[in-house]
Amino acid sequence: MTNVVPDQSTTPPTSLPAVFQRYQESIDSALRDRLSDSTSFLYSILRYAMGWSDESGAPVSAPQGKALRPTLCLLTCEAVCGEYKRALPPATSLELIHNFSLIHDDIQDRDEYRRHRPTVWKVWGEPIALTAGNVMRIVADTSIEGQRGDSVSAVDMVTVNRVLTEASLEMIEGQYLDVAFEGRSDIGMKSYLDMISRKTGALIRTPMHVGAIMGTDDSEVIESFRECGRSLGYVFQIRDDVLGIWSQEKTTGKPVGADIRRKKNSLPIVHAMSQADGTKKRILDGIYAQETVEDTDVDAVLDIMDTLGTEAYANSLAAEHCDRALERLAGVELPSGARADIEELVTFLLVREH
Amino acid sequence: MTNVVPDQSTTPPTSLPAVFQRYQESIDSALRDRLSDSTSFLYSILRYAMGWSDESGAPVSAPQGKALRPTLCLLTCEAVCGEYKRALPPATSLELIHNFSLIHDDIQDRDEYRRHRPTVWKVWGEPIALTAGNVMRIVADTSIEGQRGDSVSAVDMVTVNRVLTEASLEMIEGQYLDVAFEGRSDIGMKSYLDMISRKTGALIRTPMHVGAIMGTDDSEVIESFRECGRSLGYVFQIRDDVLGIWSQEKTTGKPVGADIRRKKNSLPIVHAMSQADGTKKRILDGIYAQETVEDTDVDAVLDIMDTLGTEAYANSLAAEHCDRALERLAGVELPSGARADIEELVTFLLVREH
Repeated sequence: MTNVVPDQSTTPPTSLPAVFQRYQESIDSALRDRLSDSTSFLYSILRYAMGWSDESGAPVSAPQGKALRPTLCLLTCEAVCGEYKRALPPATSLELIHNFSLIHDDIQDRDEYRRHRPTVWKVWGEPIALTAGNVMRIVADTSIEGQRGDSVSAVDMVTVNRVLTEASLEMIEGQYLDVAFEGRSDIGMKSYLDMISRKTGALIRTPMHVGAIMGTDDSEVIESFRECGRSLGYVFQIRDDVLGIWSQEKTTGKPVGADIRRKKNSLPIVHAMSQADGTKKRILDGIYAQETVEDTDVDAVLDIMDTLGTEAYANSLAAEHCDRALERLAGVELPSGARADIEELVTFLLVREH
Repeated sequence: MTNVVPDQSTTPPTSLPAVFQRYQESIDSALRDRLSDSTSFLYSILRYAMGWSDESGAPVSAPQGKALRPTLCLLTCEAVCGEYKRALPPATSLELIHNFSLIHDDIQDRDEYRRHRPTVWKVWGEPIALTAGNVMRIVADTSIEGQRGDSVSAVDMVTVNRVLTEASLEMIEGQYLDVAFEGRSDIGMKSYLDMISRKTGALIRTPMHVGAIMGTDDSEVIESFRECGRSLGYVFQIRDDVLGIWSQEKTTGKPVGADIRRKKNSLPIVHAMSQADGTKKRILDGIYAQETVEDTDVDAVLDIMDTLGTEAYANSLAAEHCDRALERLAGVELPSGARADIEELVTFLLVREH
């Protein structure tokens, strides 16, 4: 296994690659266009969720997501056919589906903050948050449906629609497994990886898949990007899990050990639970059986993870999937600039700090 | 205004018209086909919600819905082209969308029973119910997408997809308005009718609209059915609201005055609130300002409604929309049997007891 080392000469690996900048305006404008309805207050809730307005509906510039999914989609489309605009409707749809899932996820997990702001259910209550999420999901559908004519055939639209539907279904089934795993301390690594490949993986894999569909008819190229995206899904979620335990509050908005405190079944925990034995296992089981996890418990779990090499294990697993992602594209003919952009983005996901 | 009087010679108006029987097997089999996945427990929750299995997943025959929406869709398609099967995928999709909305509605309204059984959130908790509803919604999409080939073009599919998306969006916006109206006693009749035309109306209008799209290219015929469905939406919801106040527990599973007890903004309440003045208005406002509504309060509200002629008002408004629905089809050429079936179904909705 060779780990990919980001090229230090171009950009520090943890800063956002330039490719995020390239499509930002197009993505932002397409998203705002979809959520511009001013007749219903519901849409101002959606704009709040996107970080564009405050609770009263007044415009603000709150921290926004990095639009990873649409960026992956547009980058892929441009890599295979030289232009990205035709992939803008599904790219927009993917970002809206992602935001739908965040609104409902926050209800399910009772999370009160996202990107340092109160979550939708926290501000407007759960019934309205539930509805707002559903509207976000359906607005995502309208983004694809607005696209016919120009260079996009009805048949391509039907295909893209189907791929997005399947991805949504997989994502939601993954959310279900995640909820079903809660409170259990016997989730093996295989079950855990299966869960994240659905919950997070579906919406990381699909942008590359759909971007390729929009850019080419070559089924081998489409399949290569789909597989690249599949590996990338693991990189993304494993990094997320590592940050959920070891990242600093200033970068992610969460305290160190956040996922331990909430007894979340994340990869480091699944690893520690499955590797610990004797006293260590008894300590972990004891802590996870408690109603509340205290600061000293968090420290105890972190110590056990240290002795088990959990962080190194997680990092090497992520690096392995990172290599695999790039290997999937080795046989695809791509302009060298496009390949470099993709490599930069893929390796960024391995080392990102938030 | 002439109220439609159901033809007493054929069938008692409150028993289920024979047309529900005609498509039952096809609808049931298509629905079961969509929800047959046995690998995920999530699908057994969906089968529970459909009334096919108990909480442990074992098959039961619990009371099921009458499949009004798919029946409307298939009946319309058959009326305009002589066969119904081509409309089966969108008909199936409509029933699944309806059931998605029930699962989420029950979470929002904290309803503990539906068709005499504990609701999904009551059995499995809210996070899982939320997810189950989302899956039901997406399975609805797969029903349409499975349909290409045979007699259905990609272009028709794209149109039907768009119509269903718009209907879902309208329905959810209506659910939002419904929630937003909660606790308010100043909802006027116009706002109320606008809300129900979205919340309920969208999914009653759309089956006829889509059934016509699947059966004909004649845009006037399609528009006539769409308008017929629009009026029918009012008939359906107004009757629902009347039953929510005056029906007996044995037929609807709810006590008399159920919607008064839960302070639901339904048409009779909106009527009473807007018509009452002086003492009556003060009594109503007083009761609706209380935390809990007692039996004596329910009786007081029922008395006020009696003096205001609320029930008669609601019935005549429903009958007016019933007439309008049938008038919309007066100019459409239809086989006489098909027209009689539609008339029977439309008038049934006016007088149904559950």
